[in-house]
Amino acid sequence: MKTILSGIQSSGKLHLGNYFGALRQHIQMQEEGDAFYFIANYHSLTSINDGEEIYKNTIDVALDYLALGLDPDKATFFAQSDVPQHAELAWILGTFCPVSLMEKGVAYKDKVAQGLNPNIGLFTYPILQAADILMYNADLVPVGKDQKQNIEICRDLAGKFNHNYGEEYLKLPEPHILESVAVVPGLDGQKMSKSYGNTIGIFDEGKELKKKVMSIETDSTPLDEPKDPESCNVFALIKLFADEEKQNEIAEKYRAGGYGYGHAKNELLGMIEEYFAEARARRKELAEDLDTVRDILKEGGKKARTRAEKVMEPVREATGLFKTYDYRS
Amino acid sequence: MKTILSGIQSSGKLHLGNYFGALRQHIQMQEEGDAFYFIANYHSLTSINDGEEIYKNTIDVALDYLALGLDPDKATFFAQSDVPQHAELAWILGTFCPVSLMEKGVAYKDKVAQGLNPNIGLFTYPILQAADILMYNADLVPVGKDQKQNIEICRDLAGKFNHNYGEEYLKLPEPHILESVAVVPGLDGQKMSKSYGNTIGIFDEGKELKKKVMSIETDSTPLDEPKDPESCNVFALIKLFADEEKQNEIAEKYRAGGYGYGHAKNELLGMIEEYFAEARARRKELAEDLDTVRDILKEGGKKARTRAEKVMEPVREATGLFKTYDYRS
Repeated sequence: MKTILSGIQSSGKLHLGNYFGALRQHIQMQEEGDAFYFIANYHSLTSINDGEEIYKNTIDVALDYLALGLDPDKATFFAQSDVPQHAELAWILGTFCPVSLMEKGVAYKDKVAQGLNPNIGLFTYPILQAADILMYNADLVPVGKDQKQNIEICRDLAGKFNHNYGEEYLKLPEPHILESVAVVPGLDGQKMSKSYGNTIGIFDEGKELKKKVMSIETDSTPLDEPKDPESCNVFALIKLFADEEKQNEIAEKYRAGGYGYGHAKNELLGMIEEYFAEARARRKELAEDLDTVRDILKEGGKKARTRAEKVMEPVREATGLFKTYDYRS
Repeated sequence: MKTILSGIQSSGKLHLGNYFGALRQHIQMQEEGDAFYFIANYHSLTSINDGEEIYKNTIDVALDYLALGLDPDKATFFAQSDVPQHAELAWILGTFCPVSLMEKGVAYKDKVAQGLNPNIGLFTYPILQAADILMYNADLVPVGKDQKQNIEICRDLAGKFNHNYGEEYLKLPEPHILESVAVVPGLDGQKMSKSYGNTIGIFDEGKELKKKVMSIETDSTPLDEPKDPESCNVFALIKLFADEEKQNEIAEKYRAGGYGYGHAKNELLGMIEEYFAEARARRKELAEDLDTVRDILKEGGKKARTRAEKVMEPVREATGLFKTYDYRS
């Protein structure tokens, strides 16, 4: 069974683009292997210096993922800050990482090009990420294309470490580039994205949701006339929710005429409501019971620490680091 | 009571220059405050990639300090790697440290000037050092003059952190510059230093010690003639061991004539043997009983982790880092 590792950073309110673009496949991977999903709050510190925001994001991410189907009995789900070994291994790997390698980091170079003076956390971010991955002997790391360089850095550092100590202490991971299988249009027809302000939130509901769906841009073909489903934003969103039979049925209505965009929007609204009904209810339930959420993360942290020691014990032995403390307890 | 913090890096076999130059005052400070002495093995990794050497150095430093009078009932004595919070706080502080601040580091600039490509551990060394210091609310950090910049960096990072979160979470330490009170000449009359190869080891004994003492350079004044004690390397070393009465007595003999350098060397040899007799015996005893040494470090680590949490709990609260794990256990 393959080990899958993925760090989740809060990117605010999740929307349909996040869900169909990556999150759904992401959660599905818990069925395919030994999955470790962690909330990357050490990483978040590199850009957020507000304690309440960091804490709230951690809980929100947990609520989102648990509501959307992350199953803590299948995947190990935890907060990075609950596993001190991540910072420890990052320090160790840093001693194998030339400063020049970090200076080549794309994210770092971007900041410098913008005239910013990045902090050391941001500068050495790829080292902590390498530690995250190597900690669990991950085989697969589902990432976007923009993260490919960091997986290379991880392989590089692991290789240097193994070469120095003469054994395969750290397992070189394979990047698993998540192709964005579904193109999700936003309200204005552009790609749905927070930065375009054209999103429909997964957990939107009631009037807010209705208002958004009704505002999806369409052309001005009169109600009576036939319409082309393939050039319609509403239909593009319907395709994400409906099975083929249902899709064909609605496409027929588009082509026949007498079926207006308002009808289609109502159809879509019903689909969104139904599709996320369970997740929405579950999220509310969990939000009323944060102790359970914290317990889930606590249990996950415990499992993660135990697993982390399978890598860290030999690593400490190899590096000669004295340790009398039982991290598993 | 002031809290005193000091990290000890192995610099190989300790010699008289180390002892009278700093180590003795260092150990004496355990009487004056709440002292935390740790073996800085995370730091050692920045320059040593040999696991056996790192581990051996840890044990050797422990043996040296315990033999020379470090009292684990007075000072908290532990290995840095036994307190995971050091690496954790270093990560947090790094997010407040502009890359440009590290680029100004003297040790880093030296390496770059030598055409070397330093590793990230070396580059960010002052951040880990800041974490070491801030972890225990240290008031005093006894350091050599070369470390003054790093104490400034520590104060700077702590100030940035406190300013951001609006409270004095981290205590700004005062540097306590250790003046090298005693000038200790080596066998050749230059300052005693490992790099000059002119040392007498604290734990040297028997033939080795005798050979070294006998090889101390002197002038060729014949035995019968009067000699000037103040220009004699042997006498300079005698002064470190003898009380004033004894010093005067020997100075008299120098000036009277009929007292040769060989006599003085024998006197010195006896003094060194006597002065370190107890430490030497204790070191041998401890070296035969490494379990006790490890237990001392283990207990120290436990105390240190508990103390560290007094700083880290509010720090995690402020930064919003989720933690369910009890580091004290």
